[in-house]
Amino acid sequence: MSKRLVGIDLGGTNIRAALAESATSHGPRSERRSPAGESPESVVAACVATALDACGGEKPDGVAVGIPGPLNPRTGVVFAAPNLGEWDHVDARRLFADALGCPVAIQNDAKLAGYAEWVSGAGAGTENMIFITVSTGIGAALIFDGRLYGGAVGASGEIGHLKVGGDAVCALGHRGCLEAVASGTAIGKNARDAVARGEKSSMSSLDAELIDGQAVNDAAQAGDSLARRIIGDAGGVVGTAIGSLINLLNPEVVVVGGGVMDAGELFFDPLRQAVAATAVEVSARACRVVAAGLGTDAGLAGACAWAWKNFS
Amino acid sequence: MSKRLVGIDLGGTNIRAALAESATSHGPRSERRSPAGESPESVVAACVATALDACGGEKPDGVAVGIPGPLNPRTGVVFAAPNLGEWDHVDARRLFADALGCPVAIQNDAKLAGYAEWVSGAGAGTENMIFITVSTGIGAALIFDGRLYGGAVGASGEIGHLKVGGDAVCALGHRGCLEAVASGTAIGKNARDAVARGEKSSMSSLDAELIDGQAVNDAAQAGDSLARRIIGDAGGVVGTAIGSLINLLNPEVVVVGGGVMDAGELFFDPLRQAVAATAVEVSARACRVVAAGLGTDAGLAGACAWAWKNFS
Repeated sequence: MSKRLVGIDLGGTNIRAALAESATSHGPRSERRSPAGESPESVVAACVATALDACGGEKPDGVAVGIPGPLNPRTGVVFAAPNLGEWDHVDARRLFADALGCPVAIQNDAKLAGYAEWVSGAGAGTENMIFITVSTGIGAALIFDGRLYGGAVGASGEIGHLKVGGDAVCALGHRGCLEAVASGTAIGKNARDAVARGEKSSMSSLDAELIDGQAVNDAAQAGDSLARRIIGDAGGVVGTAIGSLINLLNPEVVVVGGGVMDAGELFFDPLRQAVAATAVEVSARACRVVAAGLGTDAGLAGACAWAWKNFS
Repeated sequence: MSKRLVGIDLGGTNIRAALAESATSHGPRSERRSPAGESPESVVAACVATALDACGGEKPDGVAVGIPGPLNPRTGVVFAAPNLGEWDHVDARRLFADALGCPVAIQNDAKLAGYAEWVSGAGAGTENMIFITVSTGIGAALIFDGRLYGGAVGASGEIGHLKVGGDAVCALGHRGCLEAVASGTAIGKNARDAVARGEKSSMSSLDAELIDGQAVNDAAQAGDSLARRIIGDAGGVVGTAIGSLINLLNPEVVVVGGGVMDAGELFFDPLRQAVAATAVEVSARACRVVAAGLGTDAGLAGACAWAWKNFS
């Protein structure tokens, strides 16, 4: 009889779980609200309940959990997960294994989304891939020589603090880093600042606190030129960073995902132009830059694929 | 009987060869001037003569050649090698194999220097290492999960064009890239510009064309404050880039080599400070930043180690 292997995508807003059905497919999702901010034990209990839903009440034989923060998959320790609350050096794998009574693998959620894009999405069939997700923050996953790359303690992929110049400061206080300039958060802030300076925009009629990345995209899609410029500038900065990574890592494909990609060509066209202006010829010719293929399902699909890889 | 395996370090100035004696050691070097600028066939003939010297006139059983330019080790094609002359998409492995009558592996010279530092130098014993060489240009070699990483077509390691901000322009016309700001070439240019602007310095007595990276280091070692500031600024920019790479790649060690390291702590102390200001805590704690251990022998040692790895 085949094993019951479950992937869990643990987010700050929702918990999703599904049964892995092959290396590249999974069953229907179970979902509930994430009790983020409560104790790690409460969050784990909600994950266990969601996993049991996905298994029809049966005990799973192996579970992989995607967690939003840096963690060491070898030791099972989560260094931090600010979107979940106080997860400061928590032995998360042990918490999950004790509560589930089966082997558990934990992995960073952006890495799993990238892994899913590599196994069955826009990067399928390659050996060397970079996945970049541009949302509230900016993260990356790296596939080198046909394997998900972790690094010394599994903390690789922190591309958000890549220096790209400029004076903006990110949440950690780093000046001129990618996340401070080009994340969804930065797009919202740049729009609020521009409106406050009196720049002409349809967003001027909104209360300042309503001007976030989504509102800027809505305005841009409706033709607002300030919103279009801000999104285009962000695309250019991300594209310059991607060009630098193409030079360093010579990947076959760069897959770009995350909420900011909802802006479509307003973001992606200047991104591609900046890649072309930055990447050296040999590596540029060897590399495609494409939109992610799995959308918001990538994290759950990656957790299921990771469960299959580790426990099938 | 053991095989005669030879490593060749083909540079724009000199050709060096030696017999590999183990995975980590080699015999005495043979050396001659490089006929750079002549045809690839002439350069290859000089390499063959140097290799035969290293073998005492006997035919080698396998040879690895380090070449100063981007190349694809799988196809054997050198994309470009400006320091050697017109090597535009030259099938170098075939040229060498035909002239030597034995199996040949080619590899980029900076990658081989990094490989040597990993096998027997400052990065020995690690699984994940970044090697950065700061000389006329700036290059890198990457060890991921215990293997030298090449990328899609072997062109990885081009860190010289990483955007770090500022207005300086590199030889390829990229604005604000690492090489334009912090290479030995940039250090010389920054000093010439400062002297031309009338800044006070012992270098003011030199003809402008004599103010190169070496002259700036000489002045700095003698206490010249302009020279010290220029070298320190370069160290800070390289350190910021290294901090970004530590965040992205979470290595166990970053090994820094190349001629600019002759400046010692004047370069390395601001480099370390910039790393500390840039790297996130989890990855910074997992990573040492150290000076290269093999000096100018690294390229030859790497070629010998590569011959041993490929043909022993």
